[in-house]
Amino acid sequence: MQHIKWDSNQLILLDQRKLPYEEEYYYCNNHYETAEAISKMIIRGAPAIGATAAFGYVLGLKHVYENEKLAQGEKNRLEKTLNEVEKILKDSRPTAVNLHWAVDRIKNKLLQQQCENISKMIQVAEKEAIKIAEEDKEINKTIGEQGKTLIANNSTILTHCNAGALATVDYGTALGVIRSAHKEKHNISVIIGETRPYLQGARLTTWELLKEKIPVTLITDNMVGYCMKNNLIDIAIVGADRIAKNGDTANKIGTYSLALLATYHQIPFYIAAPSSTFDLSIKNGDEIPIEFRSKEEVIKLNNHKIAPEEVEVLNPSFDITPHELIQGIITEKGIIESPNLETVTNFFHRG
Amino acid sequence: MQHIKWDSNQLILLDQRKLPYEEEYYYCNNHYETAEAISKMIIRGAPAIGATAAFGYVLGLKHVYENEKLAQGEKNRLEKTLNEVEKILKDSRPTAVNLHWAVDRIKNKLLQQQCENISKMIQVAEKEAIKIAEEDKEINKTIGEQGKTLIANNSTILTHCNAGALATVDYGTALGVIRSAHKEKHNISVIIGETRPYLQGARLTTWELLKEKIPVTLITDNMVGYCMKNNLIDIAIVGADRIAKNGDTANKIGTYSLALLATYHQIPFYIAAPSSTFDLSIKNGDEIPIEFRSKEEVIKLNNHKIAPEEVEVLNPSFDITPHELIQGIITEKGIIESPNLETVTNFFHRG
Repeated sequence: MQHIKWDSNQLILLDQRKLPYEEEYYYCNNHYETAEAISKMIIRGAPAIGATAAFGYVLGLKHVYENEKLAQGEKNRLEKTLNEVEKILKDSRPTAVNLHWAVDRIKNKLLQQQCENISKMIQVAEKEAIKIAEEDKEINKTIGEQGKTLIANNSTILTHCNAGALATVDYGTALGVIRSAHKEKHNISVIIGETRPYLQGARLTTWELLKEKIPVTLITDNMVGYCMKNNLIDIAIVGADRIAKNGDTANKIGTYSLALLATYHQIPFYIAAPSSTFDLSIKNGDEIPIEFRSKEEVIKLNNHKIAPEEVEVLNPSFDITPHELIQGIITEKGIIESPNLETVTNFFHRG
Repeated sequence: MQHIKWDSNQLILLDQRKLPYEEEYYYCNNHYETAEAISKMIIRGAPAIGATAAFGYVLGLKHVYENEKLAQGEKNRLEKTLNEVEKILKDSRPTAVNLHWAVDRIKNKLLQQQCENISKMIQVAEKEAIKIAEEDKEINKTIGEQGKTLIANNSTILTHCNAGALATVDYGTALGVIRSAHKEKHNISVIIGETRPYLQGARLTTWELLKEKIPVTLITDNMVGYCMKNNLIDIAIVGADRIAKNGDTANKIGTYSLALLATYHQIPFYIAAPSSTFDLSIKNGDEIPIEFRSKEEVIKLNNHKIAPEEVEVLNPSFDITPHELIQGIITEKGIIESPNLETVTNFFHRG
């Protein structure tokens, strides 16, 4: 399954709002449409929106080239316009750091290369965006290889939201670990909470796992405590949207509750994420901006109202899990056991 | 609002499946239709289904009288038929003990009265059913009076599911406490999780609180941890479906998770329930039967599919909260602080 397709003039995204019932594609012709695809959650998942934003930047450059007919000499104006492209893409969602990371990586590449004109810039940016996407696939496979060592035969793994192929360029982070374990171990199964309000668990993770024939049981989010108390879960592995220098982790709303419940029941709780998810510029989770999304997401479900229109709603899209509740962070470079300021710092400084 | 109406030949129930958008009534003409109203969750909530089953028993007696034309002398056959009526009503849902309690109360009354014929039996049973319903209202108001002492001005109360007027004959248990506190204290507000899969929180509790103009904020169930961590909740009060002799409490799925999260965040966690919710015949929560409901409840929402049809589903309708996590149980006879075998036993033996 290729859910992010690049054809040089367009970015073609599988519309995740319509899954699992319709497989429709959404076409981004410029950076505005790309930012909209991210903010409307046509595509979601930290690594996936990173790669999408990278291609969005290329589309931004093309848009500038085609529409603004910038002369070679107008450096100031070009710089101003590219800052706008960057801002539009980075502002599309606030929490996942991979979005910033991917845009900055392309910007830095352009700075290094000192391109003589915009068409050369487009070439360089496109090459780098493709590289980001290719690397993401490899990184996820490596995360899978690293993480599968944590999973015994006959294990049931709890995951949350969708940290699968759809949340990355391919293969997935937490689901990547599960995929790798399933290939090698006996009798691996998954329990997934539906992940309200957007239902990534019910719609996307079930869809991916059914395709792979990995046994999966769907529950509502409030059944996790019941499952843990009744010994139905052996290990929990989830993705991440941003990880602070001390290991505090922002991930889909509900993750914090799962981590607390897992800790109480002595179930190991792991994060699986590429190293680009770390934001070493921030000391701890308090500095991670939390996105609040619309009331409509909670009181409606596919335009079907489920609560009174006039009720107040709180809709934080992410929460922060303190590092003390995390047994380890599985990255492509290895597993950080007992993440904290010291272990994370050592991990990134060891070379 | 009167959501359970008795008119001697019919039991008329507000159809809670259609709330908050449609206020439609469902008519029960016999015990079969009453049992169906309970099992299909047209009416739900432990005290409400208790009162409903009581009226259902009266309808059962009438049905026998009208359809079977039982002669006065055919005692054996009458007994057999009434056992069937009892079984049909009691089997409509397994977890809430109030259903058994109410049916048994009417049966015992009939045994005491030694009625000479079935039409006298109907009279006695009807009187007792009306008494059960009347008492329930008073009990809830007393629970409210008892419980409001626990709530300070400017408190935000977390509740779960719907333990309101709709879950009782009127006023509510946990929502009764909130109603009483709201009348007397300043600045009381409520946070309610939507309570998947049946959405009692999103559909019913919001509807009741908006009618009373009690400020209410709706969240998805997986946002509770976030709210507690961010100091948005001062106290948690929920209802109960069955309480064992040691204080272990069965309540709507998700309650156990809330109690654990509350304990971790040092937020007092209370149960509000009439004393008829205690099942002193069982030692602890392990003996409470947990109802598992259909897959359809989880993968569909008002006939709108939200997950792949072929996915496995686990749908326990209740969970057990161990007494250690419960700060107190608010009943009409007083508050049992730190419920356990000793405190519960003392409470029921003191007079």
